Amino acid sequence: MTEPRTLFTVAALQSQPVFGDVAANLATLDAQLAGLEADLIVLPELCVSGYSLRDRAEAFDLAECFPDGPLSERLLALSEVTGGMIVAGFAERDGDRIYNAAAVVAAGRPLGTYRKLHLFGFEREVFDVSEGPLRVFEHAGLRVGTMVCFDWIFPEAARSLALQGADVIAHPSNLVLPGWCQQAMLVRALENRVYTVTANRTGTEHREPRPALRFTGLSRIAAPTGQALADGPEQGTTVLCADVDVTVSRCKVLPSGNDVFAERRPDLYGGGPA
Amino acid sequence: MTEPRTLFTVAALQSQPVFGDVAANLATLDAQLAGLEADLIVLPELCVSGYSLRDRAEAFDLAECFPDGPLSERLLALSEVTGGMIVAGFAERDGDRIYNAAAVVAAGRPLGTYRKLHLFGFEREVFDVSEGPLRVFEHAGLRVGTMVCFDWIFPEAARSLALQGADVIAHPSNLVLPGWCQQAMLVRALENRVYTVTANRTGTEHREPRPALRFTGLSRIAAPTGQALADGPEQGTTVLCADVDVTVSRCKVLPSGNDVFAERRPDLYGGGPA
Repeated sequence: MTEPRTLFTVAALQSQPVFGDVAANLATLDAQLAGLEADLIVLPELCVSGYSLRDRAEAFDLAECFPDGPLSERLLALSEVTGGMIVAGFAERDGDRIYNAAAVVAAGRPLGTYRKLHLFGFEREVFDVSEGPLRVFEHAGLRVGTMVCFDWIFPEAARSLALQGADVIAHPSNLVLPGWCQQAMLVRALENRVYTVTANRTGTEHREPRPALRFTGLSRIAAPTGQALADGPEQGTTVLCADVDVTVSRCKVLPSGNDVFAERRPDLYGGGPA
Repeated sequence: MTEPRTLFTVAALQSQPVFGDVAANLATLDAQLAGLEADLIVLPELCVSGYSLRDRAEAFDLAECFPDGPLSERLLALSEVTGGMIVAGFAERDGDRIYNAAAVVAAGRPLGTYRKLHLFGFEREVFDVSEGPLRVFEHAGLRVGTMVCFDWIFPEAARSLALQGADVIAHPSNLVLPGWCQQAMLVRALENRVYTVTANRTGTEHREPRPALRFTGLSRIAAPTGQALADGPEQGTTVLCADVDVTVSRCKVLPSGNDVFAERRPDLYGGGPA
């Protein structure tokens, strides 16, 4: 009888896709991820389409059905090699609906998608409203909750994933606000005693009528202690790695003896209009 | 007809009380607050008793009933002069119960108390479990929600106050963890688009069998933009002041057009055991 595994390796890819060139972006991803062994790899939001979609028609052109499109196929093949999970942001087509989503695969099998609950800025003109749900995917003993980019500003998103048992929050992002999220993720990790893996992109896009956007890089892996385990640069591409110990993420007790989950008082929260 | 006021001044006192000497601590407070004019003044947690209470008997000795004890009387007198609100941490006696609480007064009138929901470390041996509630007090057009020290780590506390309409979160504290809370309060302010006023103490206490404690100072006033408006030093006493514009705290819309309150999805949060 073997003990369950407690130590895992997680990685974030900080990439710089070219808008609209799915084939080129896939080839770049292949090169960037070649030889990377990790139990969890997180890629940025909309990682092969680019971000500044002009309208729904353009989004549909660059979208795919999970797990049948070109990105899904690459992720499945890659995860068969690593044996671990991969979470990657993409435009998900489902009939005449389209979502800003994260694909989740593990060891060559599709596990599902998470459809971003909180759409940022003009995303609301392009993507459909999602019903989520906020979910935790488990593979080989590692529990991974998924949220996408702007979900970070709503503390309820990370909280919901942590309450569902997430060890790690996989967080594909295309961040444009200067440093806010990167700082907040330390707090999300600390308040929930989980690991967080924010995979952000870099580079710029300017596609009229969308505003010119500069993506802020600084991808970050954070620990349940509220400390950064690995940080990416402001510009350029990189792969960040860190170790995850699920005995840490599954213990919600601080050195003070306080259990930040057991001592919640949900009957006394809320108040005001929801 | 006059327009309602939108601009207010808020202040935090960073103090260094002497354990157990209520009279001396009151005299020091008087001196530190002399001439201070502010619409809201926030004092630290347990601001005249000291923190390292050995047991309930000692806590009862240093406690008072609100609004009849020596601290309450000083706060009432002082607030009559300023015309504004004061929020101060104290040990509140209520029959045979005792709470780690915040007293709230305005313009010479008692408004009520808030009893700390989340007790830290050994506080649970000394104070009774509180039923809160998390409340917002209004005076002269300024809405002030109250939480105490360790409540900061539970995002639901600040969220509940903000959803109830708080412009400012008054946060009496006796912080001992290095910098965690001060950093998190920027995120609490940002995610809720409110002002926060954390009044922390400095100095050390070592009262066996309690551990030696060093209080971390760095009191902080934060803005809805997630920026610090005023920061205290790591050691010593000071008064911090900043301006509050309630047209900012009452607008939950980011520059991106996202309304961080209206776009919450409470039907899709939760999950897992409460």
